[in-house]
Amino acid sequence: MKTALYPGTFDPITNGHIDVIERASQMFDKIVVVIAINSKKTSVFSEQERADMAVESLRHLSNVEVQIHSGLTVELARKEQACAIIRGIRAVSDFEYEFQIALMNRKLESEVHTVFLLPHEKYTYLNSSIVRELARYKQSVDEFVPPNVAKKIREKFDY
Amino acid sequence: MKTALYPGTFDPITNGHIDVIERASQMFDKIVVVIAINSKKTSVFSEQERADMAVESLRHLSNVEVQIHSGLTVELARKEQACAIIRGIRAVSDFEYEFQIALMNRKLESEVHTVFLLPHEKYTYLNSSIVRELARYKQSVDEFVPPNVAKKIREKFDY
Amino acid sequence: MKTALYPGTFDPITNGHIDVIERASQMFDKIVVVIAINSKKTSVFSEQERADMAVESLRHLSNVEVQIHSGLTVELARKEQACAIIRGIRAVSDFEYEFQIALMNRKLESEVHTVFLLPHEKYTYLNSSIVRELARYKQSVDEFVPPNVAKKIREKFDY
Amino acid sequence: MKTALYPGTFDPITNGHIDVIERASQMFDKIVVVIAINSKKTSVFSEQERADMAVESLRHLSNVEVQIHSGLTVELARKEQACAIIRGIRAVSDFEYEFQIALMNRKLESEVHTVFLLPHEKYTYLNSSIVRELARYKQSVDEFVPPNVAKKIREKFDY
Amino acid sequence: MKTALYPGTFDPITNGHIDVIERASQMFDKIVVVIAINSKKTSVFSEQERADMAVESLRHLSNVEVQIHSGLTVELARKEQACAIIRGIRAVSDFEYEFQIALMNRKLESEVHTVFLLPHEKYTYLNSSIVRELARYKQSVDEFVPPNVAKKIREKFDY
Amino acid sequence: MKTALYPGTFDPITNGHIDVIERASQMFDKIVVVIAINSKKTSVFSEQERADMAVESLRHLSNVEVQIHSGLTVELARKEQACAIIRGIRAVSDFEYEFQIALMNRKLESEVHTVFLLPHEKYTYLNSSIVRELARYKQSVDEFVPPNVAKKIREKFDY
Repeated sequence: MKTALYPGTFDPITNGHIDVIERASQMFDKIVVVIAINSKKTSVFSEQERADMAVESLRHLSNVEVQIHSGLTVELARKEQACAIIRGIRAVSDFEYEFQIALMNRKLESEVHTVFLLPHEKYTYLNSSIVRELARYKQSVDEFVPPNVAKKIREKFDY
Repeated sequence: MKTALYPGTFDPITNGHIDVIERASQMFDKIVVVIAINSKKTSVFSEQERADMAVESLRHLSNVEVQIHSGLTVELARKEQACAIIRGIRAVSDFEYEFQIALMNRKLESEVHTVFLLPHEKYTYLNSSIVRELARYKQSVDEFVPPNVAKKIREKFDY
Repeated sequence: MKTALYPGTFDPITNGHIDVIERASQMFDKIVVVIAINSKKTSVFSEQERADMAVESLRHLSNVEVQIHSGLTVELARKEQACAIIRGIRAVSDFEYEFQIALMNRKLESEVHTVFLLPHEKYTYLNSSIVRELARYKQSVDEFVPPNVAKKIREKFDY
Repeated sequence: MKTALYPGTFDPITNGHIDVIERASQMFDKIVVVIAINSKKTSVFSEQERADMAVESLRHLSNVEVQIHSGLTVELARKEQACAIIRGIRAVSDFEYEFQIALMNRKLESEVHTVFLLPHEKYTYLNSSIVRELARYKQSVDEFVPPNVAKKIREKFDY
Repeated sequence: MKTALYPGTFDPITNGHIDVIERASQMFDKIVVVIAINSKKTSVFSEQERADMAVESLRHLSNVEVQIHSGLTVELARKEQACAIIRGIRAVSDFEYEFQIALMNRKLESEVHTVFLLPHEKYTYLNSSIVRELARYKQSVDEFVPPNVAKKIREKFDY
Repeated sequence: MKTALYPGTFDPITNGHIDVIERASQMFDKIVVVIAINSKKTSVFSEQERADMAVESLRHLSNVEVQIHSGLTVELARKEQACAIIRGIRAVSDFEYEFQIALMNRKLESEVHTVFLLPHEKYTYLNSSIVRELARYKQSVDEFVPPNVAKKIREKFDY
């Protein structure tokens, strides 16, 4: 069985993430969406909230599960016997940062390969930070996130 | 069974290509290396020569096969029931051209996903064109291609 | 009256071009689409065919006209008393080439400014060359060009 | 009447900004320079100081006005019935960030188009942050900002 | 005598830095490695620790010295009568930031030229920040830094 | 004595090249400008014409000489005992191509380092190809090349 991890902050999960996960779920037998606990970045949603939103948004994909994880991604990869780490790559600015992370992961665990997938072009300039920025101004985010996430955002930002 | 295609000109196959294929062969059940016939580009080696070099260079990978193909990659993907097209991506300059090809392939066949893999960093600035350039000046290419390819290059360029 | 030129090869005009022209037509009083005669590049369609397709595709925009022009764009800008040259910019690879052209035009005619517009993100990786490539393989281009252009393409490529 | 907004932090306004505004003022009937209040970034100059410096630096342009604005740029665009948001784009690193902002603005208000202008090449690597860095070391900034701004900087940084 | 400065944070010095210094030491008569005191960035190692690690790592290069410096690099260049400032450039993301710094330095002191050197390709995606990140997770950094630095890192991060 | 090569096509030499050579001549004891004979590219000027223009444009620099060379740059580097190959780097698009060339040269001759210099920002978007394009339309090139080159261009393009 081929397992792949898809790590990220998912603060919150967007339609771009979901698009990547749907593609990955067709290529691998099992996908683990990894909600990273990043002590350096402060997130709008708690890790439990982020995980809950992801679980609900991915209910239609039977071979996808969600885990909260603190520590190195490759350690989880070893534990899950994953052969791949999936990253969505949308634009040049993503590219070099992602390459550095991929290098670090390869040095730590040479048996786990980083796989870059291309989200649909309508998500090229979408990320969680734009969604949070819109939420801060109490603007609709319905086009960018699934309905359950849009609802949580309106609750959190009170609009 | 998950099959992936790895299309290219392979004029000739380099250690960078082989590195990508080795990674891919650990993630998919079957890899088809597709020697593309490109009527617009003139190649140094004939398609049969390119295929022969690839076959010999990949003998150690039991789930990899080599095919010569003219026409659209997605047509072969349909025929082989492949779920993925693999591309090595080394640098920013690769990136946008690859995205255009990936878009075209997605429009033509939405069930086939393009997967980008990162060759080892020692191959970051290696490509077939540098190998051919070195050969033209009768320089050693032993560091860049497997021995069987180096031998063919010396025969072709007569040194 | 503020006039802007939109020069290009338009071989053929695509939905991405039309998207840029629609935006421009809302910002300027008059847009001149300039079909460039480029002696160095061979085009699939003659300049008259390219102009005819553009005219028909832009019929819904009353302040847009189409001209065939050989020579420097800034000379036409002077003749038309245009204050701007419009360029669609989609991706980093466009960027530097466009900057060189903009510099050259500015040196030649400092009163004409180059204006970069962003086509809709669904056209980010679309260009005329992809359309011609699809046509060569007798694939549908209906998603990328208006119906009148799709018809001409099928005639030209005989499918 | 065609109105365009030119939003930014302008902390402080530089010769590069002024170059962009001069170009824009020849293409549109009215330019509103928008001094953004950004609660997340701390600025060296207060918004009133930034606006005062901009007003004085732009006195020679009769169709340009300066406004302080907090909130989304597109809301001001609606209020001012602007058809365009102007952004100076100097280098690849600007590019993708600007595209994200342009996307967000387009989603929020599809009738307002983002227009990218190219400052003179002598300003390619100039930005407000370099000016503030020079000021911190009490170095001359006369080459980068107009005299009134240079004077304010020397007062603020006490040299 | 041709002197060149090589300024940086060196928090800590890596094999990539050392590779650049070795190359530079063959081209110039004297290299001064400048440990920058940056009041805005907090460093893991104190400037004295960073200097000590650099001195020990560069003992094999007789024409290299290490200095701690606060203030503008060009001021030290004047004092040392240096003709060049050396920067390692590894990837596109380095490029534009480096160009801004180079511009600022050129404006301040036109006689000092910035020289970009290319570290060995195996260091393309290596930087001090990756090393610190690995240290935080108590992972081996032996492949990325010389032995004396690896030892200091294990002491500092307690593993 | 430290010698550096500056190879290129110089078809023709521009003010941007000369700016790079002036900088290099202050850092190295001797600069050899290498007029490359490239059998694959057709040049407007013969190699002798290109060399003559370079010699005349560089008369003010006593430690610079011009050579015509066919074959690998590193072979000339060995013969001249050069420690460096100089390349002007102006923009991101230059970057990756230059890196590939630098890699190839390093593999062939590890003692010769590639040094990237930044031309003055006013030459950022200048290259020989823009100069030739202007010449083709019989436009003034006086701003881009020294007077002796401008004269030769007018003779060659007959204006």
